[in-house]
Amino acid sequence: MCCQFGMWNGRTDPSDDPPPPGLGLYGDFHTIDWVREKARDRHRHRKISSKKKDSRWDYVKWVLDSWSGWLVVTLTGLAAGAIAGLIDIAADWMSDLKEGVCLTGLWLNREQCCWGSNETTFEDRYTCPLWKNWADFVIGQPDGPGSYILNYIMFTLVALAFAGLAVTLVREFAPYACGSGIPEIKTILSGFIIRGYLGKWTLLVKTVTLVLAVSSGLNLGKEGPLVHVACCCGNIFSYLFPKYRTNEAKKREVLSAASAAGVSVAFGAPIGGVLFSLEEVSYYFPMKTLWRSFFAALVAAFVLRAINPFGNSRLVLFYVEYHTPWYLFELVPFIALGVFGGLWGAAFIKLNIAWCRRRKTTGLGRYPVAEVLVVTAVTAIISYPNPYTRMNTSQLISELFTDCGPLKSSPLCDYVSLASNDSVEPGAGGDDVPDRPAGPDVYTALWQLAMALATKIPLTVLTFGMKVPSGLFIPSMAVGAVAGRLLGVCVEQLAVQHRDWIFFRGWCHAGADCITPGLYAMVGAAACLGGVTRMTVSLVVIMFELTGGLEYIVPLMAAVMTSKWVGDAFGREGIYGAHIRLNGYPFLDAKESEGAPCWARDVMRPRGDSATLVTLRSEGMTLREVEEVVTRCRHTAFPVMTGAQSPRLVGMVLRCDIMIAIESARKKQPGLSDNCMVSFGGSGRSGSESTEVAEGSGSGGDGVTGATLCLRSILDVSPFTLTDQTPMEIVIDIFRKMGLRQCLITHHGRLLGIITKKDLLRHQAHASNIDPPSRLFD
Amino acid sequence: MCCQFGMWNGRTDPSDDPPPPGLGLYGDFHTIDWVREKARDRHRHRKISSKKKDSRWDYVKWVLDSWSGWLVVTLTGLAAGAIAGLIDIAADWMSDLKEGVCLTGLWLNREQCCWGSNETTFEDRYTCPLWKNWADFVIGQPDGPGSYILNYIMFTLVALAFAGLAVTLVREFAPYACGSGIPEIKTILSGFIIRGYLGKWTLLVKTVTLVLAVSSGLNLGKEGPLVHVACCCGNIFSYLFPKYRTNEAKKREVLSAASAAGVSVAFGAPIGGVLFSLEEVSYYFPMKTLWRSFFAALVAAFVLRAINPFGNSRLVLFYVEYHTPWYLFELVPFIALGVFGGLWGAAFIKLNIAWCRRRKTTGLGRYPVAEVLVVTAVTAIISYPNPYTRMNTSQLISELFTDCGPLKSSPLCDYVSLASNDSVEPGAGGDDVPDRPAGPDVYTALWQLAMALATKIPLTVLTFGMKVPSGLFIPSMAVGAVAGRLLGVCVEQLAVQHRDWIFFRGWCHAGADCITPGLYAMVGAAACLGGVTRMTVSLVVIMFELTGGLEYIVPLMAAVMTSKWVGDAFGREGIYGAHIRLNGYPFLDAKESEGAPCWARDVMRPRGDSATLVTLRSEGMTLREVEEVVTRCRHTAFPVMTGAQSPRLVGMVLRCDIMIAIESARKKQPGLSDNCMVSFGGSGRSGSESTEVAEGSGSGGDGVTGATLCLRSILDVSPFTLTDQTPMEIVIDIFRKMGLRQCLITHHGRLLGIITKKDLLRHQAHASNIDPPSRLFD
Repeated sequence: MCCQFGMWNGRTDPSDDPPPPGLGLYGDFHTIDWVREKARDRHRHRKISSKKKDSRWDYVKWVLDSWSGWLVVTLTGLAAGAIAGLIDIAADWMSDLKEGVCLTGLWLNREQCCWGSNETTFEDRYTCPLWKNWADFVIGQPDGPGSYILNYIMFTLVALAFAGLAVTLVREFAPYACGSGIPEIKTILSGFIIRGYLGKWTLLVKTVTLVLAVSSGLNLGKEGPLVHVACCCGNIFSYLFPKYRTNEAKKREVLSAASAAGVSVAFGAPIGGVLFSLEEVSYYFPMKTLWRSFFAALVAAFVLRAINPFGNSRLVLFYVEYHTPWYLFELVPFIALGVFGGLWGAAFIKLNIAWCRRRKTTGLGRYPVAEVLVVTAVTAIISYPNPYTRMNTSQLISELFTDCGPLKSSPLCDYVSLASNDSVEPGAGGDDVPDRPAGPDVYTALWQLAMALATKIPLTVLTFGMKVPSGLFIPSMAVGAVAGRLLGVCVEQLAVQHRDWIFFRGWCHAGADCITPGLYAMVGAAACLGGVTRMTVSLVVIMFELTGGLEYIVPLMAAVMTSKWVGDAFGREGIYGAHIRLNGYPFLDAKESEGAPCWARDVMRPRGDSATLVTLRSEGMTLREVEEVVTRCRHTAFPVMTGAQSPRLVGMVLRCDIMIAIESARKKQPGLSDNCMVSFGGSGRSGSESTEVAEGSGSGGDGVTGATLCLRSILDVSPFTLTDQTPMEIVIDIFRKMGLRQCLITHHGRLLGIITKKDLLRHQAHASNIDPPSRLFD
Repeated sequence: MCCQFGMWNGRTDPSDDPPPPGLGLYGDFHTIDWVREKARDRHRHRKISSKKKDSRWDYVKWVLDSWSGWLVVTLTGLAAGAIAGLIDIAADWMSDLKEGVCLTGLWLNREQCCWGSNETTFEDRYTCPLWKNWADFVIGQPDGPGSYILNYIMFTLVALAFAGLAVTLVREFAPYACGSGIPEIKTILSGFIIRGYLGKWTLLVKTVTLVLAVSSGLNLGKEGPLVHVACCCGNIFSYLFPKYRTNEAKKREVLSAASAAGVSVAFGAPIGGVLFSLEEVSYYFPMKTLWRSFFAALVAAFVLRAINPFGNSRLVLFYVEYHTPWYLFELVPFIALGVFGGLWGAAFIKLNIAWCRRRKTTGLGRYPVAEVLVVTAVTAIISYPNPYTRMNTSQLISELFTDCGPLKSSPLCDYVSLASNDSVEPGAGGDDVPDRPAGPDVYTALWQLAMALATKIPLTVLTFGMKVPSGLFIPSMAVGAVAGRLLGVCVEQLAVQHRDWIFFRGWCHAGADCITPGLYAMVGAAACLGGVTRMTVSLVVIMFELTGGLEYIVPLMAAVMTSKWVGDAFGREGIYGAHIRLNGYPFLDAKESEGAPCWARDVMRPRGDSATLVTLRSEGMTLREVEEVVTRCRHTAFPVMTGAQSPRLVGMVLRCDIMIAIESARKKQPGLSDNCMVSFGGSGRSGSESTEVAEGSGSGGDGVTGATLCLRSILDVSPFTLTDQTPMEIVIDIFRKMGLRQCLITHHGRLLGIITKKDLLRHQAHASNIDPPSRLFD
């Protein structure tokens, strides 16, 4: 009764027997074996291809199979674009609900409400009669101190309601919906399984709570969570196609494309999205995936443009066009912004991680709802008095990025016209007026911006990591944009008042409009985002796609490079890496260790005098013995050796596979004796392994009767082996590039030990003197 | 007299003894071992880092070392931009020399010459009196049949002179300067050594002959060769820094960045250049290289813009801006262009490879100068009568891409004004005139374009592969642009005359300007280039950077995708892959084999009943025996085994290393006897390898006297091993991802054979039923 399972592990010869159920699946919080997944996919593909000429139906199956990759990324792109559009529209509307309502329809946001009104002049646009702030709506009195207080209270209460609803929904229905999701997606893409993280409940709850969280005015963005939302879509659609449903490696190709689509809709930057997926989140990124990611990103961007959530046929609120060139001297302030961004990034990572660790380790973590409510209340109370913090963060960024054109009515554009030497009406300053000394409103605005900076920094640190969906692209960019705009206005005023200084003399003539404060805001935003995430190319490309002009790449690049270098001086990890480490996810980094050289023998287990390696014998063990070993010893994999004297390695077998195979054999053969012999060998004849390598295709294990349970088919006959003198850098390289889960270590052909991905992570943590309090080392 | 070499192979423990000269270098036409190179670099880096606190000078060395990567890519970008600017200016001037001279200065091209003239009206610009065509210059008669013939003859003669000079220079001084260079660069980046291919002579000769070849009017472009030129710069600058000079793997990082810079200046597309480097040419592309490539590409683009070779502050001649949107129905003609591009690509590859093979195998290859002269003469004679072939190919593309604006005076824009129903003056048609039935000049131009297409196709096939620098981006794009413009004008006229057709009814109202023929030209160019090179993302991004508008990505993408699929149906290889195979370069492709599954045991050598594997014993062989084995058997590597009974693998040693080590030992010890024992073992004591693994750092081999030559330091103690039952796909994957040169094959812990990169290539060639007549299998 030698049972033979099919070639489910993809390495031995193919056979058509279906594998027992559960074989080849992974448990929650397990690491996948990329080599095995890819081999299984190759086998599946070969089977479908070889059958395609058998019948018309098989041919259709083959065609469907070949096109399913394109189909799934198209669907993902469509869904990501549509959901992003919905979120944009809903968040826009609900943010305005904090301040008032529209009389023509509760479902209209302020801008739509005012479009309907007859007041079409520019100044009246924000005071249109159909839009009532809460004081006006409730007590019929739009202005006055009492109304102000009533508005203030309503603002806080609505924010609290939104935030409270969001955190309750997250806590009750989908705990995975909190945070930005990017650290977890990075981990999942590197080959980890987190069941439900990309499921339909998470998608639904994250979409709803993201809108609530953004509308509540907290210091968080929707850009990071959009990547998570897009990945949920990719995961859900991949369940429609057997090619992706059954194969964890193939599924991750879809997820890579989905994350590109997510960034594409978050920033309106399809190429930036692809590069983000490549640079920041993806792990295994073949060229085919690059092309499909690009496609998904484009589809998503076009769906979002068709929805047109901002009514300006742009994908984001803060798209800009500058018309003035920059000058070489300006690199000095740009690099200064880079230094600021790097410092901000390093400080943010340190403080945020410290705070999140405190949340994890102290009682604070037990009251997520209270925490969110308190932070929301503090945010709302601090934010309301200052117009720059009261507005939506995206709107703030848009305001700061935009240059003062003739149509711009912001207080930041209140420049004095030199001709009349009077403070001109807002809206008349700008590009037309070449010399721009600041008017009084500019100075007020600068103070308000400085206050906004001072409040936003601590609030962002406290907010990221709470139990609501929270991205930090937008808050980081806001910090940088405020700092940049402040610096930009200062440099501009310096230039206006000191045209004879050596810095300005050459290029900033009287009457020339030489400094663009909006560009400074943009460079500052890029620098701060770079400092926090340590992204490089993808960040510059995203910013480039926002401006559309090649000339502004150089300032952006200078600032991003500086910020990365400054940030790296304080710690080489970005915020996502830091959160991965904080949560103890098994993510294998490519970073070079600086310490003493180290070899495989120093990391493998068992090492030194500890217990010897537990192995199985390919012949001669009874079922009871095998079960005993497997039950006693909870290693994930067991090497299988030839007979007792001079043991040599035959292959490797996974613990879960043995369990499933034995269970399945017991089901098939209810009377299977515990004393039945277990054979992992070629054809049951012991000691025949040296010459019969060439045969053994498919039918190798059959034909032997008697009390032998043949488990040859679950044996991995080509385990990876390395010698004990291999440097650890090479070991890590192989694990990363091949996506291994474990590797055997030999010395002079003799098996010495085993290295698993966990051993590597432990080694890396040890090398960096880190002791992560993690799920990983439990 | 046991000599000990330093840790030059990077795998064993470090030691500071300098290695014997030549150890660790590679011969011409050899494959590098990436693992070894990276290990060596790690060792070097560790050494410099550990020393940095010793003295100020060591600290400076460490800083210099850390920054040398940025420095070398900056220099490469600067040089690539500068040389590209020079080439552009020189080619512009010399192309015009075929038609005439400038009286104010021989060194001025027609445009510059006419700027100086007083005729500033638009029509007179091309007939300015200071520019004399040859007939006018020689016989003082600008027009008439005699002058036409004289101009014709001069055109042909100048073209012949340029081409003849180019081919002679290439043949005499730098044979590697011919062709586009991209196939070779792909091979070099994959780890092959071709000495002199990226040297200073090649750079110099290629720069000069590229100008000559482009100016001669042959159907070739300068875009591919610019990548070669940029890589030469990268290679030359990498010699300035020991980090890159001494390490072939690090040098390839610089070359990847250089190829990005090359494409950046060729198309004015820095992001496209980076993606080209990533998608098409690079092999090993860590994230650090991505960032540096981007930097190099930007530096190069800005240097080129500072030089401003075309006087329009654009990087390329054919930058365009469209203002009309495209409509969904237009995807039908765009996809048709994609089909055309795919067919053209497949036909071009087949015909060009057949012709190149004929050149290689028949006597044709012995007369490169005659071939070039004949093709140039034919090209010049055919091209002169047709204005579209007479002009520079870049100018032709620019002409075809540009939409008919009000200022456009091309015959292609000779539209009939409906108001007066007369053929209006050229220059008055265009965007202002909504309905555009074609005038007579348009029909003439269409005929001329069709003729140009018919002549350009065969000439391009004959030209690519001749012994002059020749890129095929531009000729391919020209073919596609001509086809696209033809189709675009046809669709436009259909729309004008049949507005009631169901296709046009919904969106092309009378009076609307609905079709942009220039966009069709662009889509056609992308499709044809895609068909020939099979590039995907990078091509779309390059084209996107030419137009600058996100909306035209969808047509481009549709056409490029169609063209790739149609082309792949006829053969999966792009032109560069086909040329790599034609020349037999050892390039390991990632393509999946469709055939029967295959295992390592089927590919390794020795296999079956052939000779047994030649091994060395770690102890007990005399110097004479070792030398005999090494001389008799020309394998690149020898496994080293423990004693004769039950041999087990100790490590692997390279043939060239043994030779160098023995030679160096003989030099040091002139009286070294042939009977001296050779030891590869731990410390000379035989059989002690099982326990003394943990020691052996640095001084392991010393301390033993007597007639033993200790070669432990050249032993690679961590060779890669795989089992004989590993599927070939996994073997190829490991070779590709880890950059291996050879791998040992074991069965149950016993050494069976060895697989080298050449075995893999032979296996791939065999699997695709190809028998390449190559340098590789000699």
